[in-house]
Amino acid sequence: MGTTTEADYPPTQRSRVKRLHDRARYDRETVHAILDAGLLCHVGYVIDGQPYVTPTAYWREGEQVYWHGSSASRMLRHLKGRPRVCFTVALMDGLVLARSGFHSSVNYRSVMAFGEAEVIEEADAKRAALEAMMERIVPGRWPTLKPPTLQELKATTVVSLALEEVVAKVRSGPPKDEPEDYALDVWAGVVPTSIVLGRPASDPDLKPGVVVPENLSRIRIG
Amino acid sequence: MGTTTEADYPPTQRSRVKRLHDRARYDRETVHAILDAGLLCHVGYVIDGQPYVTPTAYWREGEQVYWHGSSASRMLRHLKGRPRVCFTVALMDGLVLARSGFHSSVNYRSVMAFGEAEVIEEADAKRAALEAMMERIVPGRWPTLKPPTLQELKATTVVSLALEEVVAKVRSGPPKDEPEDYALDVWAGVVPTSIVLGRPASDPDLKPGVVVPENLSRIRIG
Repeated sequence: MGTTTEADYPPTQRSRVKRLHDRARYDRETVHAILDAGLLCHVGYVIDGQPYVTPTAYWREGEQVYWHGSSASRMLRHLKGRPRVCFTVALMDGLVLARSGFHSSVNYRSVMAFGEAEVIEEADAKRAALEAMMERIVPGRWPTLKPPTLQELKATTVVSLALEEVVAKVRSGPPKDEPEDYALDVWAGVVPTSIVLGRPASDPDLKPGVVVPENLSRIRIG
Repeated sequence: MGTTTEADYPPTQRSRVKRLHDRARYDRETVHAILDAGLLCHVGYVIDGQPYVTPTAYWREGEQVYWHGSSASRMLRHLKGRPRVCFTVALMDGLVLARSGFHSSVNYRSVMAFGEAEVIEEADAKRAALEAMMERIVPGRWPTLKPPTLQELKATTVVSLALEEVVAKVRSGPPKDEPEDYALDVWAGVVPTSIVLGRPASDPDLKPGVVVPENLSRIRIG
């Protein structure tokens, strides 16, 4: 196994981490926690032998991740053919500054999932998925919005990938230098990085009298 | 062209943005500014028909981007064959909360570059590239570190991609709702997101007397 955690997602030839395997996690708890902290994923797919990597917002429900976009987008039109994809989420947690360039690194949490993306066709399923997306981003906001029209649902493609062939990788903590290098007069440590939310900026065309809703305080990223 | 900016990077079938083409930029200034603000890229490559998307640190010099890693890593071993790759950087700038789910979006700056990755083999060129990387992350730190040994250089693979087939995409500003929806009693606007640096955490095994260097204040991300 090369890991100390339980393998909810049994490693395959693709998902098994071969190098630095102490960073690998195959357990559901770690994978879900990383996925639930992120907001942007990078989806990899292949057209005519050329790989494409498209950043997009995603969300998780149970053992599925979802993303969406315009039905006219290149990525989403391509995914209707159920090609194999790679779904990657990476959260940067800090710059690891070692006493040598060689051992300098980045603290991060990442998830990589492989499989065939499935397009959700049915309007009610799409609506439910889009509601779940908004609830992930701003809990409580969906019921306050204009409900999606059938035309909007048609113009939106929702894609889902089952979490089956999945691996998480985590690096945390201080640098790991060569034993003799700890005697050097070089500062070493971690500069933490995180995503922060700024003060909400109201639309300049906001209807007078509409106030900033309390639910914005419930946004959680990172 | 579908864009108002000069095309330093002439759009190709792959790099031309077809939908929402007002978000596309093909000019060097925009592309460089985004690349110089980011730290993590996502590299897409294909092995046996399966796409892989690997997050890793990168840096830019002139019209090249670089990334590196262990010579033993799957990605870097694979890239020695000069396959086609997709190099993507995405910086999230805010949650765009519209009056409908349909028009809700994300503010972001992204760059996508296509081409054949080239592995840097020569030790001096590798050393220079790694110095440039550290100078990108913490300006002034490299000369204070233990210089890389030949063995470390051998164990490190540095990869470069020329910026030729490149497109940037930028979304900024408030939501764009349906004209009739501005009359709704729904708050709309942007919740800005940014990456912030925390207080440096010294290595618990730091040599007594070594202080936090001034150059950490020169780190710029985002």
